[in-house]
Amino acid sequence: MKLLRVGPPGAERPVALGQDGTAYDLSGVTADIDGGFLAGLADGGLAGLAARVAAGRLPVAEIGGRRIGPPVAGPGKVVGIGLNYRDHAAEAGAPIPDEPVIFLKPSSTVVGPYDEVLVPRGGEKTDYEAELAVVIGRTARYLPDRAAAAGAIAGYTIANDVTERAFQFERGGQWDKGKSAETFTPLGPWLVTADEVADPQRLPLRLWVNGELRQDGSTGRMIFPVLELVRYASQFMVLEPGDVIVTGTPAGVTLGRPGTPYLTPGDIVEIEIDGLGRQRQVLGKA
Amino acid sequence: MKLLRVGPPGAERPVALGQDGTAYDLSGVTADIDGGFLAGLADGGLAGLAARVAAGRLPVAEIGGRRIGPPVAGPGKVVGIGLNYRDHAAEAGAPIPDEPVIFLKPSSTVVGPYDEVLVPRGGEKTDYEAELAVVIGRTARYLPDRAAAAGAIAGYTIANDVTERAFQFERGGQWDKGKSAETFTPLGPWLVTADEVADPQRLPLRLWVNGELRQDGSTGRMIFPVLELVRYASQFMVLEPGDVIVTGTPAGVTLGRPGTPYLTPGDIVEIEIDGLGRQRQVLGKA
Repeated sequence: MKLLRVGPPGAERPVALGQDGTAYDLSGVTADIDGGFLAGLADGGLAGLAARVAAGRLPVAEIGGRRIGPPVAGPGKVVGIGLNYRDHAAEAGAPIPDEPVIFLKPSSTVVGPYDEVLVPRGGEKTDYEAELAVVIGRTARYLPDRAAAAGAIAGYTIANDVTERAFQFERGGQWDKGKSAETFTPLGPWLVTADEVADPQRLPLRLWVNGELRQDGSTGRMIFPVLELVRYASQFMVLEPGDVIVTGTPAGVTLGRPGTPYLTPGDIVEIEIDGLGRQRQVLGKA
Repeated sequence: MKLLRVGPPGAERPVALGQDGTAYDLSGVTADIDGGFLAGLADGGLAGLAARVAAGRLPVAEIGGRRIGPPVAGPGKVVGIGLNYRDHAAEAGAPIPDEPVIFLKPSSTVVGPYDEVLVPRGGEKTDYEAELAVVIGRTARYLPDRAAAAGAIAGYTIANDVTERAFQFERGGQWDKGKSAETFTPLGPWLVTADEVADPQRLPLRLWVNGELRQDGSTGRMIFPVLELVRYASQFMVLEPGDVIVTGTPAGVTLGRPGTPYLTPGDIVEIEIDGLGRQRQVLGKA
């Protein structure tokens, strides 16, 4: 099942896409696609929903031309994973990590997949990062193994883990300073439920800037696979339904391309992951 | 005005304390003390509330013996400031920062001021940090100066920025890994509105472990004062009503006392800030 949220910021309505692309209004089923809804889905309380979508037994929603929001409302936290692809660690001049590197992004950074991304005031090195995002469906606390991690995942979507490198590396302290600006986590377009993603480690992902292919990777080249990331993160924090983990980016970011200009207003970033759809952001200025 | 939340976790009810200590039920005024309520307070929509509390024109609440929760419901984010006291930077073996060090804690770490604090599984160096916490009352984005920062503050409370040092420093990457465990941000007991805190830079703060005084500092010794922290943070992220900033800890943490054992189950941590009340946590095990 593909779940999405359609409408203006803060007033999105829940929608499901059928296999033929028909959009169905889920307002009669849930007020929103949020942690509570995802927990209900995980616990089987909405077992019939996918079947109703498949059979077209829901009101059709008219979504053409309307804004698509992030596919999950108000995530409690956005967990970032750093340096999770060998080629990206190499281009960043960082050693291959012995265990996952964790940072956090404020939930207030999350926007829709086609929303404007703003270069922050004082920002000089605003960079893109195409990433597979995991959405949590069940509370996860000290998960014992990867099988348990699989049970905690509601589904997958695309994230752009936008980062201001000058703030990340040159302003003292922790990476979070460069990861936290408004609009810095475009998410979506869809939350594709985990049952429809045959293997999260076989997803090609690509990113273009102004039509030029910059990142061309595959989740198969992650150092720590998705299930390990979820298991691992749950040893350090409680993951809750609706939480998002952005799982790291492959090579090709501006940081790793000396001489390439960083993002500036008017630039267009597009990201695609097979089966998860496509994002497109125009850069603006805060 | 002193605001607090009383009741079991997730079902707290809003309460105000009068000058004589009488507790008044605010359920008829607001469903909860959250970002929306604080924004209303900041915008003057509840201008009469303090007067009604002062005059006792609200139903009395019976709170004796009941749990006190964190004084703000569901903060959108918890922003941490590192190394903000010279003596603490020295004991941590870190240079004095040129500008504030920012990290993030998940909101899921927030608990009440008397709730149990759990040593995480695998944790060996769980440490305390007594801190002044700022609660945001108005959306703050690229604040121009400290006067604007003052207008964005709803009030103050006490935080214990509990930290697992082994996770923070010895497991690769960013501090967040040691700041994120469940129960790691006891907050409260009260949100004291900013008008009742004459000078946030003149607050003595003290912390005891099992009755032994370990931290004995004053917010007057901060490197970056509260208004600068709020102004500064707003250059890197949008602060929203209900967000919390924990402003750093003075010297005296276990990290800075070689030979002193870290916290273990059964230990009792108490924190006091003049005018903001007192916390007390018993350590347990996850």
